[in-house]
Amino acid sequence: MKNTFGRSVAVTLFGESHGKEIGAVLDGLAPGIFVDEDFIRHQLSLRRPNGRISTARVEMDEFRIVSGVFEGKTTGTPLCILIPNTNVRSQDYEKTLPRPGHADYTAECKYHGFQDWRGGGHFSGRITAALVAVGAIAISALRQNGIEIGTHISRLSTVCDREFQNYETDLEILLDATFPVLDADAEEKMRAVIEKAAAEGDSVGGVLETAVIGLPAGVGEPWFDTVEGVLSHALFSIPAVKGIEFGDGFALCDMMGSEANDGLSVQNGKVITTTNHNGGVNGGITNGMPILFRCAVKPTPSVFKEQESVNLRTLQNETLLLHGRHDPAIIHRARVVVDSVTALTLCDLLALRYGTDFFNSAL
Amino acid sequence: MKNTFGRSVAVTLFGESHGKEIGAVLDGLAPGIFVDEDFIRHQLSLRRPNGRISTARVEMDEFRIVSGVFEGKTTGTPLCILIPNTNVRSQDYEKTLPRPGHADYTAECKYHGFQDWRGGGHFSGRITAALVAVGAIAISALRQNGIEIGTHISRLSTVCDREFQNYETDLEILLDATFPVLDADAEEKMRAVIEKAAAEGDSVGGVLETAVIGLPAGVGEPWFDTVEGVLSHALFSIPAVKGIEFGDGFALCDMMGSEANDGLSVQNGKVITTTNHNGGVNGGITNGMPILFRCAVKPTPSVFKEQESVNLRTLQNETLLLHGRHDPAIIHRARVVVDSVTALTLCDLLALRYGTDFFNSAL
Amino acid sequence: MKNTFGRSVAVTLFGESHGKEIGAVLDGLAPGIFVDEDFIRHQLSLRRPNGRISTARVEMDEFRIVSGVFEGKTTGTPLCILIPNTNVRSQDYEKTLPRPGHADYTAECKYHGFQDWRGGGHFSGRITAALVAVGAIAISALRQNGIEIGTHISRLSTVCDREFQNYETDLEILLDATFPVLDADAEEKMRAVIEKAAAEGDSVGGVLETAVIGLPAGVGEPWFDTVEGVLSHALFSIPAVKGIEFGDGFALCDMMGSEANDGLSVQNGKVITTTNHNGGVNGGITNGMPILFRCAVKPTPSVFKEQESVNLRTLQNETLLLHGRHDPAIIHRARVVVDSVTALTLCDLLALRYGTDFFNSAL
Amino acid sequence: MKNTFGRSVAVTLFGESHGKEIGAVLDGLAPGIFVDEDFIRHQLSLRRPNGRISTARVEMDEFRIVSGVFEGKTTGTPLCILIPNTNVRSQDYEKTLPRPGHADYTAECKYHGFQDWRGGGHFSGRITAALVAVGAIAISALRQNGIEIGTHISRLSTVCDREFQNYETDLEILLDATFPVLDADAEEKMRAVIEKAAAEGDSVGGVLETAVIGLPAGVGEPWFDTVEGVLSHALFSIPAVKGIEFGDGFALCDMMGSEANDGLSVQNGKVITTTNHNGGVNGGITNGMPILFRCAVKPTPSVFKEQESVNLRTLQNETLLLHGRHDPAIIHRARVVVDSVTALTLCDLLALRYGTDFFNSAL
Repeated sequence: MKNTFGRSVAVTLFGESHGKEIGAVLDGLAPGIFVDEDFIRHQLSLRRPNGRISTARVEMDEFRIVSGVFEGKTTGTPLCILIPNTNVRSQDYEKTLPRPGHADYTAECKYHGFQDWRGGGHFSGRITAALVAVGAIAISALRQNGIEIGTHISRLSTVCDREFQNYETDLEILLDATFPVLDADAEEKMRAVIEKAAAEGDSVGGVLETAVIGLPAGVGEPWFDTVEGVLSHALFSIPAVKGIEFGDGFALCDMMGSEANDGLSVQNGKVITTTNHNGGVNGGITNGMPILFRCAVKPTPSVFKEQESVNLRTLQNETLLLHGRHDPAIIHRARVVVDSVTALTLCDLLALRYGTDFFNSAL
Repeated sequence: MKNTFGRSVAVTLFGESHGKEIGAVLDGLAPGIFVDEDFIRHQLSLRRPNGRISTARVEMDEFRIVSGVFEGKTTGTPLCILIPNTNVRSQDYEKTLPRPGHADYTAECKYHGFQDWRGGGHFSGRITAALVAVGAIAISALRQNGIEIGTHISRLSTVCDREFQNYETDLEILLDATFPVLDADAEEKMRAVIEKAAAEGDSVGGVLETAVIGLPAGVGEPWFDTVEGVLSHALFSIPAVKGIEFGDGFALCDMMGSEANDGLSVQNGKVITTTNHNGGVNGGITNGMPILFRCAVKPTPSVFKEQESVNLRTLQNETLLLHGRHDPAIIHRARVVVDSVTALTLCDLLALRYGTDFFNSAL
Repeated sequence: MKNTFGRSVAVTLFGESHGKEIGAVLDGLAPGIFVDEDFIRHQLSLRRPNGRISTARVEMDEFRIVSGVFEGKTTGTPLCILIPNTNVRSQDYEKTLPRPGHADYTAECKYHGFQDWRGGGHFSGRITAALVAVGAIAISALRQNGIEIGTHISRLSTVCDREFQNYETDLEILLDATFPVLDADAEEKMRAVIEKAAAEGDSVGGVLETAVIGLPAGVGEPWFDTVEGVLSHALFSIPAVKGIEFGDGFALCDMMGSEANDGLSVQNGKVITTTNHNGGVNGGITNGMPILFRCAVKPTPSVFKEQESVNLRTLQNETLLLHGRHDPAIIHRARVVVDSVTALTLCDLLALRYGTDFFNSAL
Repeated sequence: MKNTFGRSVAVTLFGESHGKEIGAVLDGLAPGIFVDEDFIRHQLSLRRPNGRISTARVEMDEFRIVSGVFEGKTTGTPLCILIPNTNVRSQDYEKTLPRPGHADYTAECKYHGFQDWRGGGHFSGRITAALVAVGAIAISALRQNGIEIGTHISRLSTVCDREFQNYETDLEILLDATFPVLDADAEEKMRAVIEKAAAEGDSVGGVLETAVIGLPAGVGEPWFDTVEGVLSHALFSIPAVKGIEFGDGFALCDMMGSEANDGLSVQNGKVITTTNHNGGVNGGITNGMPILFRCAVKPTPSVFKEQESVNLRTLQNETLLLHGRHDPAIIHRARVVVDSVTALTLCDLLALRYGTDFFNSAL
């Protein structure tokens, strides 16, 4: 379905970086979920550029709910949110010279030159604001059912944050953090790395680590619609994500089977695993332990250094030197997008498993 | 959808490890593709256990094509392949004690005890034989269009294979290799690691690296149905895969943007990138360069050491000691599954992009 | 998804009229449903040709369940059923002269001559045997939840059956009827019409009317996935169905709005409608009243009279005179196909609405 | 996918009758299609209430394209259109007394009272304005490929229009007709019937007949995604449609097989059928002849007569007497909705068959 994702709870994205508005349609979420506009605003603020470590293009994201909410609650019918683009400078972009690392050239191949190329058009990270807006509602729905999601920067360049220790309190720390780390020292060092990159006209990437707690066991499918498969399908949409691993992921390749296996045990009458190397998923299906995964976020492709490009009109090699406003890092802004996409995907999996009234325990 | 994947070219899986037969239905592939039964047999042989580094359960995989082939060629209507299970020893399995690292416990949560638990049932790696059988046909269809896929073990425990150098010749090397590496020394060392693990009753994992060459530029979608998203959705179905990265993947987090970007250049009138850190995909869409990705394959969960488990009947902790026949490593067998799943997924993306006659250039 | 239908409970069809076997995969039905092989046999017997009013090709339909059933109950994983073709006479068919009213010519256009043309190949009504086999399991699952489906021949040529009077008792009458009518006189007259057509080498069609009772109110979607839309999507797959109407259907065009509206009333504390002109669906969603719809079944296209055709090799007009074994009417055999497709579709709608455990109240 | 329809070219609907705006997202249509805003306005005008035979709620439908169009042409990325609601009188509606024949009661069952009940909310025919707006673009895309769609009122109450004679010229007549009939006398008589119903506070329905010419042969699938099935899936979304028949539809039940079959013949080197009783579709696949189908449109449920209803708060029977502004007939307004839904559905089928560049022959 291209720009629509989800089979029971689905989201559809539209809009371009320099269009009048971007937006999303959220369909299939249970009726009666309280839509907290302040929380949506809060989530959008976490995505908004902040200070020297971000682009100077700051959008106020004055969103507008067009449909699907009545008397402050979801109706169960499609919920459309619109967010205007106000701070646009198309003169900074050029059509004929595709920017390396961006989708400019592939857009040309797919859309034959008819794409809106200004500011990356429909490929722009700007579109993720719409994902965050509807994602906030999905996060609220999950929260009502005791399911919490949190993401931190586990590594930025060579600086590492501490690992999750206590999920409940750690996720709470992350809720309002504009720079999402668990260790205050790490924040300082990471900010310094970003500022240095910015000063050099360059950019950095890193690893985002996400935990989900409270999910029931027994969600997902054995083949194709595994929890890992469905989540990664959605998460790779986030611009700059180039890798995903669950549990210990690639590090599992350094373990023996006897180490990698998570032993089973009974705790308070409930089956748990004594370790969580598999990230809460076995055979594609949740086991009731925290879901744990990491996304590789590549450095922002917009850098202020000379780059090789090709003039698409003349098919001659040319040197490209970007100007304008760009992010030396987007990883701290991307984490709320990861939370949002995760929430939307889990709402879909839960609705498929438990039915469309699932999220509203009052129903 | 569940056990069906694909929107234009789709595969449906069925069967259990200890049932009479397993199978797959391949739907939507163009008519007129020559179905080379010898090639299917060859591909199945690459998946078959071989010698000391594999399980002693060897199936001859005497597949049978039930439908969808007429006079040796695909008809375009659903192609069903059946593969009998002949070498089954259900007495080696127990229902009440779920095996750590396997799906036994999550199957219980999802299917409430009604699942066929013998040998892992529908979750078993055995089912991948059916994927390999239909995947062989997808590989043939791609090959007719100049698209080649190859996978090697880039790392097993601490032993590394050399990197791809010349894709054309390297992929040819891998075609018939029963132990898929590019460097003969690496094979010897890897085999030694596996045999050592086997001797200890333990198991090892590793990293599979895949290259796809010949794909046209402009395939994939900007959001949700990105090439990375759709491929990873399918690939996470392969039992033991716990991570996927495209291009330089997680290593991109160690680079500056100016390093990570792939410069554009014209070569023989065609736009190429001068490096391929992004693995042939920008903004979710192919750029015409080789697709490059790596899958983390965890160590086989079946080990012959005491493990913690829970008796699901009594809800008491118990110690589990497996006996029977198991693989100390499956990574060398998994690579043909990765190739097959990749081929099936690419057939779907290509048919969506270019129409259902795409694969048969004679049409 | 082409030959797969359903999003939560899905069926995949495969096979050709003159292949070795046909079959279906039923995926997503709840675990723990008792699979009554006698009931499957019974349903297949209702579809089987019977006597002078049917083709002389009689298949014993000795089905085999390949997967998805363990200890007599559904596992919840894909259930594959195979049915052998044993009574095949391909010499009765010719490739170059497409039969009018059949799919021979359109198959040629779509599959470019690679289709299995023998006996209609994948387009043959023979494939519906597989639908009936898996449909029987869906019917059982619904029955466990108090949902019953029944279909009668409401009209054959000019002979009409009586209307439904008491749904409970009328549906019971139809359960075992090999010729599904409510009025014994109608049966005699209809059989005479069919025998007359057979004697003339011709064929007849008619109208099948279906009732579903016991469905909860609140199932279906307002746009696109309306109950009418989803059911008709599936039902038009049944060869020979060329029209579908819900409630009073086309006859609603003869009423004033004040007649066509179904008044609401409270009966035993439950909201009912006092009439059922809308066939149990308003705004695409069930209202708790019986679902009522009618399918137009065209006369079987195989007739023993001279027909105009085109030689596809020479592109010259030619006269076609069929020989072989054909049905002078299929409507009495088609009704169990309608019941099966209806059951499969409703299982999907219910699983989407109430979750995948819905059908097994013990879960 | 609930409020999204289509797999390659997809439309998503949102909005409520009395919300600020309604809208639709059209995704997957080829890039480079000229978006003629005047033609969109024209199509919306055909849907707009006109004079005594329609409701007094007249909306100017000042639509706004939010995304997906750049320099006057489609970009190939999601195209969102918004249409404001300006002429709203919510005081005419009441929540507790569901209107017979409407979706008020079923919405309550599905959405548990959280639905926006004003003016029918998301179930309102008002939403079809958004379908018409994006449908206009689909119609343009088809027209560029020589495919034309036209619908007339073939019957209103007992008044019949003449049948299609010459498709090319007849479809041209219908292009601009605000009251879509082929015979001017029929218009006069039909208008008189509607006015009489309006005077009595009642309403009437009728039959819409649609022809599509220029479609290539070989589009559609043998099972499930038949042309009839996919079209009817979409068409039953149109409020008031309760029946669909293809070709001669229910009248085929009155014919012998020898009459119902369409003979094949060669004309100017092309295979045609000498009659078209099957409406251009055999075995679910187009045969190159005109697609012909009819939709039963029930009388508008809003009538100004006393009706039986139930107070949903007290569960007591009550009498309902509507006031406000309503249509005595919607059939003449519904035809452009039928054309739009048909065009959107055919774009999807064609893109699946021939690829996503299909519509732009310049690509």
